[in-house]
Amino acid sequence: MKAARLYEYDPAMNVKLRIEDIPSPTITKPDEVIVKVGAAGLCRTDLHIIEGVWQGIMDPHGALLPYVMGHENAGWVEDVGSAVTSVKPGDAVICHPLRTCGICLNCHHGHDMHCEHSQFPGLGLNGGFAEYFLTNERSLIKLNTNIAPLDVAPMADAGITAYRAAKRAAKMLPPGSYCAVLGVGGLGHIALQVLREMSGCRTIAIDREPGARLLAKQLGADFVLDGGPDLIEELKSITGGGAHVVIDFVGELGVENICWRLLRKGGEVIVVGYGGTIQVPTLDLVANEIKIGGSLVGDYTELVELMELNADGKVTMHYTQYKLDDINTAIDDFKNRRFTGRGVIVP
Amino acid sequence: MKAARLYEYDPAMNVKLRIEDIPSPTITKPDEVIVKVGAAGLCRTDLHIIEGVWQGIMDPHGALLPYVMGHENAGWVEDVGSAVTSVKPGDAVICHPLRTCGICLNCHHGHDMHCEHSQFPGLGLNGGFAEYFLTNERSLIKLNTNIAPLDVAPMADAGITAYRAAKRAAKMLPPGSYCAVLGVGGLGHIALQVLREMSGCRTIAIDREPGARLLAKQLGADFVLDGGPDLIEELKSITGGGAHVVIDFVGELGVENICWRLLRKGGEVIVVGYGGTIQVPTLDLVANEIKIGGSLVGDYTELVELMELNADGKVTMHYTQYKLDDINTAIDDFKNRRFTGRGVIVP
Amino acid sequence: MKAARLYEYDPAMNVKLRIEDIPSPTITKPDEVIVKVGAAGLCRTDLHIIEGVWQGIMDPHGALLPYVMGHENAGWVEDVGSAVTSVKPGDAVICHPLRTCGICLNCHHGHDMHCEHSQFPGLGLNGGFAEYFLTNERSLIKLNTNIAPLDVAPMADAGITAYRAAKRAAKMLPPGSYCAVLGVGGLGHIALQVLREMSGCRTIAIDREPGARLLAKQLGADFVLDGGPDLIEELKSITGGGAHVVIDFVGELGVENICWRLLRKGGEVIVVGYGGTIQVPTLDLVANEIKIGGSLVGDYTELVELMELNADGKVTMHYTQYKLDDINTAIDDFKNRRFTGRGVIVP
Amino acid sequence: MKAARLYEYDPAMNVKLRIEDIPSPTITKPDEVIVKVGAAGLCRTDLHIIEGVWQGIMDPHGALLPYVMGHENAGWVEDVGSAVTSVKPGDAVICHPLRTCGICLNCHHGHDMHCEHSQFPGLGLNGGFAEYFLTNERSLIKLNTNIAPLDVAPMADAGITAYRAAKRAAKMLPPGSYCAVLGVGGLGHIALQVLREMSGCRTIAIDREPGARLLAKQLGADFVLDGGPDLIEELKSITGGGAHVVIDFVGELGVENICWRLLRKGGEVIVVGYGGTIQVPTLDLVANEIKIGGSLVGDYTELVELMELNADGKVTMHYTQYKLDDINTAIDDFKNRRFTGRGVIVP
Repeated sequence: MKAARLYEYDPAMNVKLRIEDIPSPTITKPDEVIVKVGAAGLCRTDLHIIEGVWQGIMDPHGALLPYVMGHENAGWVEDVGSAVTSVKPGDAVICHPLRTCGICLNCHHGHDMHCEHSQFPGLGLNGGFAEYFLTNERSLIKLNTNIAPLDVAPMADAGITAYRAAKRAAKMLPPGSYCAVLGVGGLGHIALQVLREMSGCRTIAIDREPGARLLAKQLGADFVLDGGPDLIEELKSITGGGAHVVIDFVGELGVENICWRLLRKGGEVIVVGYGGTIQVPTLDLVANEIKIGGSLVGDYTELVELMELNADGKVTMHYTQYKLDDINTAIDDFKNRRFTGRGVIVP
Repeated sequence: MKAARLYEYDPAMNVKLRIEDIPSPTITKPDEVIVKVGAAGLCRTDLHIIEGVWQGIMDPHGALLPYVMGHENAGWVEDVGSAVTSVKPGDAVICHPLRTCGICLNCHHGHDMHCEHSQFPGLGLNGGFAEYFLTNERSLIKLNTNIAPLDVAPMADAGITAYRAAKRAAKMLPPGSYCAVLGVGGLGHIALQVLREMSGCRTIAIDREPGARLLAKQLGADFVLDGGPDLIEELKSITGGGAHVVIDFVGELGVENICWRLLRKGGEVIVVGYGGTIQVPTLDLVANEIKIGGSLVGDYTELVELMELNADGKVTMHYTQYKLDDINTAIDDFKNRRFTGRGVIVP
Repeated sequence: MKAARLYEYDPAMNVKLRIEDIPSPTITKPDEVIVKVGAAGLCRTDLHIIEGVWQGIMDPHGALLPYVMGHENAGWVEDVGSAVTSVKPGDAVICHPLRTCGICLNCHHGHDMHCEHSQFPGLGLNGGFAEYFLTNERSLIKLNTNIAPLDVAPMADAGITAYRAAKRAAKMLPPGSYCAVLGVGGLGHIALQVLREMSGCRTIAIDREPGARLLAKQLGADFVLDGGPDLIEELKSITGGGAHVVIDFVGELGVENICWRLLRKGGEVIVVGYGGTIQVPTLDLVANEIKIGGSLVGDYTELVELMELNADGKVTMHYTQYKLDDINTAIDDFKNRRFTGRGVIVP
Repeated sequence: MKAARLYEYDPAMNVKLRIEDIPSPTITKPDEVIVKVGAAGLCRTDLHIIEGVWQGIMDPHGALLPYVMGHENAGWVEDVGSAVTSVKPGDAVICHPLRTCGICLNCHHGHDMHCEHSQFPGLGLNGGFAEYFLTNERSLIKLNTNIAPLDVAPMADAGITAYRAAKRAAKMLPPGSYCAVLGVGGLGHIALQVLREMSGCRTIAIDREPGARLLAKQLGADFVLDGGPDLIEELKSITGGGAHVVIDFVGELGVENICWRLLRKGGEVIVVGYGGTIQVPTLDLVANEIKIGGSLVGDYTELVELMELNADGKVTMHYTQYKLDDINTAIDDFKNRRFTGRGVIVP
């Protein structure tokens, strides 16, 4: 099959993926499933993989190279292992990014991201920038009949990461409250839609890019700010003292120490983006009773819920489409912010 | 001042309220406030008061007659007691129906309806079908500047009763789930709007009246049913096994024993309407892990939240307006369902 | 292997289980596990199976007879299927009563009892009143090293059913609140311990049997009542108006219509026992804002938590031990209430 | 009446309070109550007041001096304002430290500490280091008949601050989970008792003082550590990867950057002590999905719950008693840690 493989890590990111013909995956365990890839989203994590950010943790000696990246996959079931009963060849599916064991205590709790035996295809083992992709039955969700894999692939990771944060926020946001969303990119634009559908709050979208601000406005953000030097004062004025919840999709570049200053008493920051270091006096935490907490990729059940919102036409992914042969162009455009929303690779 | 007073209880409801001139209320306690009535909603409870349903509990010897009914009041502050600081004459306000003490443990919890020393103007003591109305500071919410008392008066009781039930439902309704709303009258049409704004669920509105079904459709109900004999099968087919939550605004006429049969495993009925008796085998409760629970008038804080939704244009009250002089016509029209939504009395 | 099998359903319960030698179970699927039975609890459901209560649902033509009952099992792993990795022969384990699929949406949520493809060994297919027992990997919890299978077997069903109800109750029971426990048998005596450990509430144990009341006292119940005709008044006097939560482990014999009358405003009944029919006016539900809801067997994760309480010495099972050869005596003693707590069968 | 007044702020803390005769407080508002002081707890905040830590915020020009400190008060009602109905002279009471308005939205929510018009007697206006103390009706809780003011006075502030944090922790701590408590002083020793009564978790008490560790052991802590340089490794070993919740009663001296390193994935730090600055990489927050949040003084309803636990003998305050004449000795002993638990002043 045709696939795009990474052959070396390169902090300067000058390396190109090689488009080549490699053997298709085969089923070796009873719960495995081969998916014919319909589309695969391109994620910032893919850039970080190429840069070698994850090399130390996942592949210190480069022994796993070369491999196929791509962890936001949707397509059609091609073949199933002997124990698989919930899907059959031809079914359109989206793939939760983790292959979980279903046996450990975290799996019994439904905390997929904390599965003790999980695998993450696309990072060290072959992912979805190819014609076929190997995963297991537990990771699959059948698509509603009106939904095409191309339209939803990035929901598998970008989508549920935003959904998880926004759902957690929505529970803390009664009518009349304010939620600030820092960063309206591939994740932030999903969070805005989820908040609009699942809470009665008012949203304040903040992004330095005019294109992102325009998108926020189209998606119904109540206020749209450019994140200039007066951000804290502007936001406190709009909200009468601060936001009830802040979702920080940036988490670096100084934003990580602005986010918690945007809160009112009793408020909470949900941190999704990362890179920076928060410095917060315990006196501020206590006197204002504020909370700061991280949020990771969503669970399987959260992807199910997000796909229901999508099937109902309430939350949609904005994307730009590239052929697998053009994946290096897609990566280059992503690095240089030549598209808004998400880039999607189609075999 | 002009007021409409009830002079006798009459199960046949042939009695008329008398429009007469009575002394305006005066302030005798430091926390009291006199409100110049802008509008007062007409509630089914008013019909029940006239019928004498509440006589046994509230006024067994009829000693409280005559008095002014009307417990869904909005208007402008006319005068304030010596200790009042949060409102001043001229402020537009809506009145939570209870005068609560603020001292008992339930008040400290914000459970207004369970206040140990509450008073309910309009039931045994003078209410708002008059030019002026006496309440206390704790019951008042200032209206946003773009809101007129006439447009919101029934929010004070019909609105928050529906809001309380719908908010409780919304917490149990993730995207892809189903909420059935039995009865789309003065309360049900508010609940549908609240569910649309505060959850990602799908709503199924059920009413025997074509006008109510039309309103449900306009308010965005995903499915609208006429509650015929096949209701249970229809609903199970739509939902794939039953609703996650059912809100029963009827609670009598047989609906009380249909409502819980509409649930799927793990589901919950929220009962708001009353009159009938539920008969449910414990085996059904246990084997299906279903819950059945009542919901009363909402708290002050819930009225605040509802007024925020209203100020944002997300939830509005549908009503028909009557002059205080025509209150007996309004009552007659209400009994005979000659209007949809709520009837509102204007002095 | 030696096993006790049921050969016919008999509403009069005169039939005896036959102790016979049958082939041991063998592994045919990769996720299966054979457990050498250490002990198996005797449950009221076993009596109901013999009576034929479940025949209509599970075995209308009696085609599944004969089979081995027993669904509260603990023992040691004897053999494992090819895909099993979390346990190995020799491990002491307790078995959640359901074999769940791990694939359906309810399993992803951790709602084991609502698994769409579950099997319930001991009811229609062979259970644990035998030397060996077949289940799957997902149902197993390894025992702490200080715990013997004999001491915990009934935790697998009686224990977690009580735990699930008591844990749900504990969340609604702040210090100073009251929880009434109706029925202090195999389930109720666990619930009392769980409430003592997991909430700051006061417990009121109610049972007509002196032995059960004595046990309740020993387990730390704050009040112990005999459930006489003045129960409602007694309880309202103790609690100053009613219990915050009532757990009804009886659910029949008239108790089902006393339970909700024991509540204060805002209270909740958790129904675990079944057989009767609740009759409750919607007016009572609404005016008092009370809830009535069923509770089923607990989830796998709840069994894990209960085993932790047990390992810490905080919750223990009271039981009487019988040899497998004497199982018919055990059943007879159970029917005639000749022991308190639980009966346990040892091969 | 006799009272101890502060005449100047002194960072070196060499200043003494002056014991003098001043006019007793009088009632000037209808909701006011005069309490004959039974006992008043000595709080670290009192030391900070003397040092002038709060001068900048509360009394920049020293215009409020001299005044009586003391915000942990219990005693007997001496006199009541005209509108007071819930207490009468002679009633034994404990006083929530804040005088709240009961009118603002935060009061309606029961969020006393965020009341928009609150007053804090003992900080800028006269408190309880005196024979009589002026507060309002909303702040009072009647004591159970078996409770003496002396035994509970510090519950009014130290107690509920610990209770609020421990109750929040308890909700996140199922059986088998671990809670680390950093600092076993006046607050920490209450938190340990609350956790023991309200959750099935295992507690790990950490303090550098041998006396505090002994107290922790007596109060039932499952593990007691001295907080040496190997703390993180020790705790990860005990807990199998980290605590589910950490309550940090220190919040300074480096502890603020150890606390969050003690967490397992998904864990939460509750910060109560303050003074230091937390530095946490967003990557740690996100990858481990941990939360860090402050907790302030508890609400009125939390003081009610704590007093119920106390009345049931489940949570008690350890204290050392001083006469009002000896208050400067008490302050000196406190500074030099010459007693464990709390110091209490008796007029």
